[in-house]
Amino acid sequence: MPTLEDVAKLAGVSGATVSNVLRQRGAASAATIAKVQQVARDLGYRPNLVARALAERRSPTIAVFFTNILNPFYSEFAFAAERAARRREHFLLICNAATPEGSLDTAYLNAVAGRLAEGLIVLGSDLGKQSLLAMLPAGVPVVLSTWEETDMYPTVPCVTVDFHKAGQLAGAHLAELGHRRIGIVAGSEHPEIVGDVAHHARLAGLRKSLAAYDVTVPSPRLQIGSDSIEGGRLATNRLLDLDPTVTAIAATNDLLAIGALQAAAERQIRVPDSLSVIGLTGIWMSAQVRPALTTIDIATASLADGSVNLLLDLIDDPATVPASALRVVGTPALVRRASTGPPAR
Amino acid sequence: MPTLEDVAKLAGVSGATVSNVLRQRGAASAATIAKVQQVARDLGYRPNLVARALAERRSPTIAVFFTNILNPFYSEFAFAAERAARRREHFLLICNAATPEGSLDTAYLNAVAGRLAEGLIVLGSDLGKQSLLAMLPAGVPVVLSTWEETDMYPTVPCVTVDFHKAGQLAGAHLAELGHRRIGIVAGSEHPEIVGDVAHHARLAGLRKSLAAYDVTVPSPRLQIGSDSIEGGRLATNRLLDLDPTVTAIAATNDLLAIGALQAAAERQIRVPDSLSVIGLTGIWMSAQVRPALTTIDIATASLADGSVNLLLDLIDDPATVPASALRVVGTPALVRRASTGPPAR
Repeated sequence: MPTLEDVAKLAGVSGATVSNVLRQRGAASAATIAKVQQVARDLGYRPNLVARALAERRSPTIAVFFTNILNPFYSEFAFAAERAARRREHFLLICNAATPEGSLDTAYLNAVAGRLAEGLIVLGSDLGKQSLLAMLPAGVPVVLSTWEETDMYPTVPCVTVDFHKAGQLAGAHLAELGHRRIGIVAGSEHPEIVGDVAHHARLAGLRKSLAAYDVTVPSPRLQIGSDSIEGGRLATNRLLDLDPTVTAIAATNDLLAIGALQAAAERQIRVPDSLSVIGLTGIWMSAQVRPALTTIDIATASLADGSVNLLLDLIDDPATVPASALRVVGTPALVRRASTGPPAR
Repeated sequence: MPTLEDVAKLAGVSGATVSNVLRQRGAASAATIAKVQQVARDLGYRPNLVARALAERRSPTIAVFFTNILNPFYSEFAFAAERAARRREHFLLICNAATPEGSLDTAYLNAVAGRLAEGLIVLGSDLGKQSLLAMLPAGVPVVLSTWEETDMYPTVPCVTVDFHKAGQLAGAHLAELGHRRIGIVAGSEHPEIVGDVAHHARLAGLRKSLAAYDVTVPSPRLQIGSDSIEGGRLATNRLLDLDPTVTAIAATNDLLAIGALQAAAERQIRVPDSLSVIGLTGIWMSAQVRPALTTIDIATASLADGSVNLLLDLIDDPATVPASALRVVGTPALVRRASTGPPAR
């Protein structure tokens, strides 16, 4: 395998010059640049990333922290994030960062931060957010991604989607189909705490769009469940026990909505003939369940791209990024499938 | 944050001694060992993994290559592999390694091998296996994992599950329920090539157990599809068009089986009353579809643990591992759920 020294020798320049030219740094004449690039191409020279990292005392990796990658949203995020990182010559460590108690594993965070990885992306609202600021390692670039409350950490760069808008789209779709007796299944980090909702912005958006149609969602029709298929199934069963007259259910994410489909199937309620169900996220499973789930797609790949690029910008040059950078990426969009239709007369 | 030097100073020994004691290397007296351990505990000293890696010119990471992490089996593998790696102080890079043409991205493999990662786990039979040996980087520990043909690469360490046994269990379950007209949906890397099957061992196991009940599977009842939900749906539709008399379908993995459930739903065939469906793998989705899928669980976490541990053994000391190490881990087991039952009379 050709080395930097091989390129330098053949091009008749120093190793430092080769390095600078190939990294588009420093000053070199156009002739030198052309010569170095030609020789590197001819030799098939590939920069040794670890050698470079060793020399610069840095590691060309970034790490993404989430509760666990079994959640389909997180695996879709990881898929897109790895591709985005590669486009900028970085590699992706994945860190399943929930402790058995469900809070953020800060020991793990610190073991990775600034040592193995040049920067961190911390995802998800379910990782003990109340005290996150105190947990974040100092001096290491961190980007929060896909957080519901973007104003909670005004000093930490954040990439997110317009969840309020996503909620509005879901509510508007049901109302425009003619539904007026609408239930909501909302996800919570702590379903054991009465009224705890993780998806505030989505819920507010839902309520707002429904209010435009004079639809309110009184408490029996708002059920909160843990943020999973099983949580959605249980919450939907409670909702339908308390109010069997609802004709549509909006869930604040797809896993909950898939649970709602299961609850309907168990009760032999036909979807969408007797009950419409809409999700929010657009995980690939939403297209694969039966009936296929109508959902609001939040453009997960855009979230991952935006998060990786903001983090790498911070790593390259923190001065170019505002301390409280908030980037809202993607455009939530209705994906209409088989689980929604007009209410039965 | 306390450094190695802080521990050395307080313990009254050299930095090298601290390093050796904490890594259980070299020779030190019991008293020195006790002293160093005590001081390290008192100070809350955590070894700086990157500093260690820099000093040793190595990186405490391993990389796992698969087509892409969107496949639920791969995300479950990655979840367990990351945990197994952490237990041995390593971190996990994930690499979605399929090129657009579906072969292994060897440029990526080489960029990671021996530079960013100390070793590689290469998963799955769908990554251009014919020429894999030529693609593997020299001098870097590699473990193949979850390969169907364990005798294809006699010189490469491999961790796998007994897929033949898994196939047998699936066939025996259907036969014991009383099914005799049984169809098989088998996965292929190249469904466009007539007769190409990826899951040879599973298929052979299925055929063997069915033969014990004098059940054969003539070609209209064996349909091959691409290894996905959609592939399973299409193959099942072909099978049921050609032979609507089958009372049960065995699929060579869960994604195909979920596709078979979808095909049945579209045709309004009741599962399991009119058609039983069994999968193979045990991905978490198999418990979440409706009806819940009966499957053969191949113990994915054991595969991941076994793969990571074999790789780290190789990294620690190649001499302790036979060149052709083949480890068959886990025990395939029937998980009976709602998608199988006796044939209708």
